[in-house]
Parts: sequence; structure tokens; C-alpha cells
Amino acid sequence: MDKSTALESPVKIRINELIQPITDDLLSGAAEIALRAITIFQGVLANAEGDLPSPDQKKAALTYTAKGLLDAQPAMAPLFHLGNDVLLAIEPAKTNEELASLCNDALANFEKRLCASAATIADIGYDLIDPGELIFAYSFSSTVVSCLLNARARGRFFRVVCTEARPSMEGRKLASRLASGGIEVIHTFDNAMGLVLGNCSAAFMGCDCIARAGVINKVGSWMLAVACRELKVPLYALSGTEKFVTDERMFEFERHERPGVEVWDNAPKGVALLNQQFDLVPFDLLAGVVTENGILKGKDVDPYLEKISVHRALKLEAALS
Amino acid sequence: MDKSTALESPVKIRINELIQPITDDLLSGAAEIALRAITIFQGVLANAEGDLPSPDQKKAALTYTAKGLLDAQPAMAPLFHLGNDVLLAIEPAKTNEELASLCNDALANFEKRLCASAATIADIGYDLIDPGELIFAYSFSSTVVSCLLNARARGRFFRVVCTEARPSMEGRKLASRLASGGIEVIHTFDNAMGLVLGNCSAAFMGCDCIARAGVINKVGSWMLAVACRELKVPLYALSGTEKFVTDERMFEFERHERPGVEVWDNAPKGVALLNQQFDLVPFDLLAGVVTENGILKGKDVDPYLEKISVHRALKLEAALS
Repeated sequence: MDKSTALESPVKIRINELIQPITDDLLSGAAEIALRAITIFQGVLANAEGDLPSPDQKKAALTYTAKGLLDAQPAMAPLFHLGNDVLLAIEPAKTNEELASLCNDALANFEKRLCASAATIADIGYDLIDPGELIFAYSFSSTVVSCLLNARARGRFFRVVCTEARPSMEGRKLASRLASGGIEVIHTFDNAMGLVLGNCSAAFMGCDCIARAGVINKVGSWMLAVACRELKVPLYALSGTEKFVTDERMFEFERHERPGVEVWDNAPKGVALLNQQFDLVPFDLLAGVVTENGILKGKDVDPYLEKISVHRALKLEAALS
Repeated sequence: MDKSTALESPVKIRINELIQPITDDLLSGAAEIALRAITIFQGVLANAEGDLPSPDQKKAALTYTAKGLLDAQPAMAPLFHLGNDVLLAIEPAKTNEELASLCNDALANFEKRLCASAATIADIGYDLIDPGELIFAYSFSSTVVSCLLNARARGRFFRVVCTEARPSMEGRKLASRLASGGIEVIHTFDNAMGLVLGNCSAAFMGCDCIARAGVINKVGSWMLAVACRELKVPLYALSGTEKFVTDERMFEFERHERPGVEVWDNAPKGVALLNQQFDLVPFDLLAGVVTENGILKGKDVDPYLEKISVHRALKLEAALS
């Protein structure tokens, strides 16, 4: 177990309550969720309740928060990096003032990085949207939304086809957001991808995390990728490098099985329900990963992974012990 | 227009009412629908209302019924063949007695053929189900159901994975039917096909019609076929030869677009909805078509198509004039 000061159970309950909406959110992309997690860290740090008077108690609460966020959405890499950045930053703090300053800096830097990434990715993505063409977009990703809305705002005309992304239907959220931004949207169900992809000049998806083996995203991304290759449509994952994770962390996404009733609320006896949220798209099925540092291929990923340093509280062995 | 005796409008209204449930049925397979259409022809022929006293009037009503059924489900080949068989059979009838006898024989022969096909296909399919393995089944097909239930009744143990088949969810009907027949079923959504197919030893689908270009079935079949090839899972279409149609008839399936509200009942302004029901699986994506005459490949289809003789009332030029 964690060697930091043990937390009182009211503190844990309070933090769990802050995290619950993140656990329940099946509609938001990873970058969007990370922005909301910043607010949660800020709240825990501010400690309006005053029941965490010492720096060690605050560190313990922030560690508990970081771990809880990871449990809430184990596939969302930005949540891991956000928590990891915070824990590494506050490590040397000796006083409450030092801790507040280090933590707030880490949160501000992370937010700045997320927003700057999204803006650069949107600019690179602009050149992948041919005027007058049809673009396929899958599931919901704030990075993809900002890229498409940016292109429209810069005067490019194009249409977007998107599908539902069962079972949570975050494709509808994508359709609504794009339509309200003045983009003409065609919407259909997931199994009709094959009918529309052939008319698209490119396909975009977001992602939850990226490692050596490929890109993890909403289930259905693998089917999309295979269909894109068959129909010769280039498929891009739009993602800041804050989504890159080491291999051990990547397979955490397989833990994310949701209740079967979300698939079918009154299935008859003898029918087992499977509700996995993510699948893995190998790099060879992608035209590239559009990051703030340009369009990367699988071979470009290694240097990013080598740079990642993981706080001991977030190491998987620690989590398992 | 049809040169046969013009029908009174109450007769047409009555026939339309008989056909409406067929139009509205999004859950049943083509063979199952054809069996119900036989009952409709029997009802029109019996003419309990007594307002079709002459053979010519009865012929006109049966022609109107055949055309109406085709309009109701333009992709379902057995409906075409059933109507075509009836119209070709009653052509020479001079009296009401002759007409009744010819029509009833045609209906009885068609029903016998459907049932015999399904039984033979079930026996051939038995050998494609490896003991203890997982079989993928897509959408709803009475031919596939009878094959799987037959195998289970003969003592073979296996499990079936199936998906929803959005938007009408006839995959749930498949899951229920198989589970109530004692088969262990795993059910998930369509975009999760990629997560489960790799564990399957074979995949089965039904079909609506078959022509030179391939097999028409519920939308999503093409995605399934591409995924099966990628994962090296043999995909079989189970279908009696009563599903074979000439090329001109095949493309009728593209007419079958359903209301967009079935995809999303409150889509925001600016979002166009696409609700196509069928797609085309080329033969090279299939391991074979399991028919009552054995497992056929694309090259085996031609002789069946050459034998098809189409009644003048059902020729597409006639339908368009």
C-alpha cells in the first residue's frame, strides 16, 4: 500500500463523489475529460473543508485522486499523464504554499499543453480536408471536433458523415456539435459504415491512448480501420502526444467492461451480454497519427515512450499491491 | 400499365391492408416472410368477399398482390419468386376452378421447396459447426436459425455470438430464438464484431437475394465479411436457390431506404439521416453459399440465373411503365 499518510474516510468519500461523474461519462473524449479532471485536482488542493491541514495529507489526497481518476477511465491516457505530472511535481514540496504552487503550475502547464496541442492538430488537420469532399468521423473526440470546426471557420466547405458509436451513442453528440457549428452532417448507424466510407476522401478518429502496439479508441475503430483500408480511404487518428503511454499501461483498457444492461436491458435467460468499450487499431491500418509535432507513423512513437517517467504511486505493480 | 381487368378500389385497399404488415416487418428473414406471403395469396384467391367473380378479376387481384409484395420488400427474392411462380402458373386458367387449382399447386410447391431447402441446408451447415466452437451469426435469418437449432438438436454443443443489427435490432430476435432452443448465446453491439470474430471458427449469415455480383443482406454484412477475411474466419451465406435473381432485379434493394427517424428520432437541424437496409457482399469475401444443392461459389450461380423466367407483369420495365 501507499506509504503516504492514511486518509480519513470522509475525505475519500468526498473525492469519490467528485470522480463519479467522470466514471459515468460515456460521451466525452479523453482530452475533454482531462480538462474536467484539472478542476477536480484544483478542488482537492484548495480543500475548502479544511480537513487536510498538512502537506502530507494533501499529497495523500492528491494521490488518491490521481488513482481514482485512472480507475474511472483506465483507457484515457491524458488522465494518467495529468495525475502523473501532478504527483511528480508535488513530490519535493515541504510546505502547503510550496505544494499549492507546484500543483497549480503542473495543472496549468497540462491545460496549456492540451489546448496548444488541439490548436496545432487542427491546423495540420486542415490540410487533410479536401474542399467540397466528404469526411468520415467516428465516435466523439474534442480534438476531431476542434479540427473540423476550425477548418469550417477558416472557410473550408465540406460535409461530415458520422455513425452512432453504440452503445453510448456519442456519435450523436459529435453530429450535434458539428451541425451547430455550421457543418453539414450525414448520420447513420455503425454497421452502415461500409455504405458511406467509399464516398469519403478521409476518415478521422480521436483516441484514448497510444502505445507501441497501436491506437486504443472507442470499440468499432478497428472495424472502421479495416473498412478504410479495403476502400482505400486514409484513416487518421488525431491526438496530442499526451495520449502516449507505455505498453503495460495500454492494456489497462481491457479492464473497462461496462454493465451488460447498457447493451440490452431485458435480455432473455441464456443470453450473455458483452459490453467492451475499446479496441486496438494497429499502426499499419492508419495513414498516421496527427499530433502537435506533425503526422507520426508507428516507428515514430518509441522516443515519446522512452521519455515517460511514472510516479511510483501510479506504477501498475503499485496499483496491484 | 397492366392490360388485365382493372380492379375496384375496395379490392386494392383490402390487398394493401394484407400487405402492410409485410412492409412494416423489419425483424423477419426473407424465407419467413415468404411463408407469410403464401397465406396472403391464399386469402386473395379464396375471395371470401365474393367481389371477384371472374377468373380475369382474380388474376388481376393476384397480379396486384404479387406487385404489392415486391414493393413491400424489394430486396427479398423469395417474394419475387413466389409471385412470379403464381402468375406464371395461373396464366392459362380459363375457369375459376382451374385458376384455384393452379394457384394452390404453385403455392404448395413453393412452400414445399422452401421447407425442403431449409432442411437440406441445415444438414450441410451441421458439418460447418465444429464441436465446442464459437459460431458468429448476423442479423435474423430463419435459415440460419433452423441450421443452428438442428445442429443443437442433433447433440452438437457450441456457442453463438451475435450482434444487434441496428437499427431494427433483429439480432435480438436471433439471440432470443437460439437461447430458447438451448443454445448458449453471447450478444453485443455491431461495432464490437472485431472483438469477438477472432474467437469464432465460422460465421453464418442469411440473405435476401443473390445475383452475379454477390449476396444482398442486411446492412453490416459487408463490414462483417471484410472483418472475417481480415481475421481468417470463413463466412457462409445460408440460402436456398429461391433467393437467386437476375441482375436487374438485384439492384432493387437500393430502393429500400427507410425513414430517418428510425435511426434518430430527434436529430438536430443540419443533420441528415441515412437509413439504408441492405448491402452487397461480393462472392470473393465469402467462403461459399450453402444451398440445398451444396456449397456454391460465385461461378456456380450463372446456370441458376439462366433458368429464371419472369412473368411480364413483374418485369422491371413493366413496373416502371
